[in-house]
Amino acid sequence: MTAARHYLALCGGVGGAKLALGLSHVLPPDQLTIVVNNGDDFDYLGLTICPDLDTVTYTLAGLAHPQQGWGRDEESWAAQAVQQALGVEPWFQLGDKDLGLHLARRAMLDAGQPLSAVTASITRGFGIAHAVSPMTDDTVRTLVDTDAGLLPFQDYFVRQRCAPVVRRLCYPGADSARPAPSFLAALNDPQLAGVIICPSNPYLSIDPVLALPGVRPALRQLAAPVIAVAPIVSGSAIKGPTAKIMRELGLDPSALAVARHYGDLLDGYIIDAGDMSAARQSGATLPLHACDIIMKTLDDKIRLARHCLDFANELAHRPRAGG
Amino acid sequence: MTAARHYLALCGGVGGAKLALGLSHVLPPDQLTIVVNNGDDFDYLGLTICPDLDTVTYTLAGLAHPQQGWGRDEESWAAQAVQQALGVEPWFQLGDKDLGLHLARRAMLDAGQPLSAVTASITRGFGIAHAVSPMTDDTVRTLVDTDAGLLPFQDYFVRQRCAPVVRRLCYPGADSARPAPSFLAALNDPQLAGVIICPSNPYLSIDPVLALPGVRPALRQLAAPVIAVAPIVSGSAIKGPTAKIMRELGLDPSALAVARHYGDLLDGYIIDAGDMSAARQSGATLPLHACDIIMKTLDDKIRLARHCLDFANELAHRPRAGG
Repeated sequence: MTAARHYLALCGGVGGAKLALGLSHVLPPDQLTIVVNNGDDFDYLGLTICPDLDTVTYTLAGLAHPQQGWGRDEESWAAQAVQQALGVEPWFQLGDKDLGLHLARRAMLDAGQPLSAVTASITRGFGIAHAVSPMTDDTVRTLVDTDAGLLPFQDYFVRQRCAPVVRRLCYPGADSARPAPSFLAALNDPQLAGVIICPSNPYLSIDPVLALPGVRPALRQLAAPVIAVAPIVSGSAIKGPTAKIMRELGLDPSALAVARHYGDLLDGYIIDAGDMSAARQSGATLPLHACDIIMKTLDDKIRLARHCLDFANELAHRPRAGG
Repeated sequence: MTAARHYLALCGGVGGAKLALGLSHVLPPDQLTIVVNNGDDFDYLGLTICPDLDTVTYTLAGLAHPQQGWGRDEESWAAQAVQQALGVEPWFQLGDKDLGLHLARRAMLDAGQPLSAVTASITRGFGIAHAVSPMTDDTVRTLVDTDAGLLPFQDYFVRQRCAPVVRRLCYPGADSARPAPSFLAALNDPQLAGVIICPSNPYLSIDPVLALPGVRPALRQLAAPVIAVAPIVSGSAIKGPTAKIMRELGLDPSALAVARHYGDLLDGYIIDAGDMSAARQSGATLPLHACDIIMKTLDDKIRLARHCLDFANELAHRPRAGG
């Protein structure tokens, strides 16, 4: 591996953030760009909340709450306690330190900075050396079409706790949104050695990224391999509503069904070792790599990150099936 | 005094809030309406900040910081510390608990409630039994015309610390703003026994209230006396930039000059005992009442409140000079 090789990770929130953290431990800052879904962003009490970006930021900074899957560790709740005392029951939890991030972002956005520049300032401010970028500086707002109506993502995810039955996902704004500068730069980098689609929800977290103009064609035309890590192990989502949504969309919630969803974008797929025999039986022709993909400890994340890089490098030296 | 007698207090921030607190101790909740300037309101990081309303609210709730003249006592600063760590230096200080109030107000305003209803909810939420209302639910934004240009009030007051030389004040929006419902109700209450203009800055805090359509005529036509408490003692403002602004406007910063500014609105004026001989020498014809008007302790505030009520009652039983 030469020093100039570069990797691009595409991710959403919790699951993706874990692998992004692993990758940040095995790649130096100049060799990794982490592009994060921001179709989940929403405006709340005058603030622009970017749930996936913030989860990635807090995870990389070592500030994420270890269990709850959102927000900061060692958070305080003075502001929210006052809101509640005044009869306002917040449907989105905002701790004091988290509020500090949102207010800083509000100040920078109000000063005219694009979200990607704001994100770069924030991640640097938290001591993160690796490049973290929203997928776009433009506004994309994931909508979930459900039996309870067309819901903004956070309404579906937080307010309604994923209870409504999903019929369709759509990404208004994606058609005319431009990928953020460092996303474009990574896609066009001649030293790009691999793209890693992290184990995030394919419908809620990855598809908005892929929906941006030019992204799918760019991934298909890349010389470097595109791999994904399954967000499903033994038919269950590692985290979040992936399996539930797949069933509601009429799909069998298996690791391989996610690979079929990504289709010809993928040059390889990493699945849990326990799913390998089922995958072989299915007659999949996509190159598969099996390992333990559940990330509990930092060591798990680093180990899976190494598997990703090794698999991408192995694929780069194989004749490609589709290319 | 019968149970139904009602008093209306007009006030701005710190000085006015002190007398409002005194009045709230000597009048039961159904006998006092406190109307607060909200020409100082401004939008900041997505929040609507109402400095005078908040100072009055925190003062009446016993939550005001005892020295600094803004914000809460026993405040925490986790959100602001994060902003600063991210390189955003806030020009307006927002503690965590204070943020809770602003976020609650944002939520209620976003739900379509007028500011007066929001303020009623907030003051009730803080356990305040007396009626506190913004002067208007409409938008009035005090501008300070200075040698450094036309500045929004908070820019002049907080960012520039009142350093620019004031040439003129203006209250855009006041022309078409409607006094808030409880302000109108108090002005039209047949049981109104007195109006007390608190010792607030006449130009920055009281004139915006008086600039609302119908307020000056209503005060002039009232059967009940209108009195003011001097915001100046021995030629110095008790608090804030009143004396500086008066000098810049070409006025002698004396207690009586403030009375002349209010002109024929006043039926009586309360000045500090130390200013009485100078006032007598000036040949003022306005009924004056002298007492110690500096409010340091709660007892001072209650005592001055009693002077206000006694003086108003005395004036109500005197033949009035202006008819």
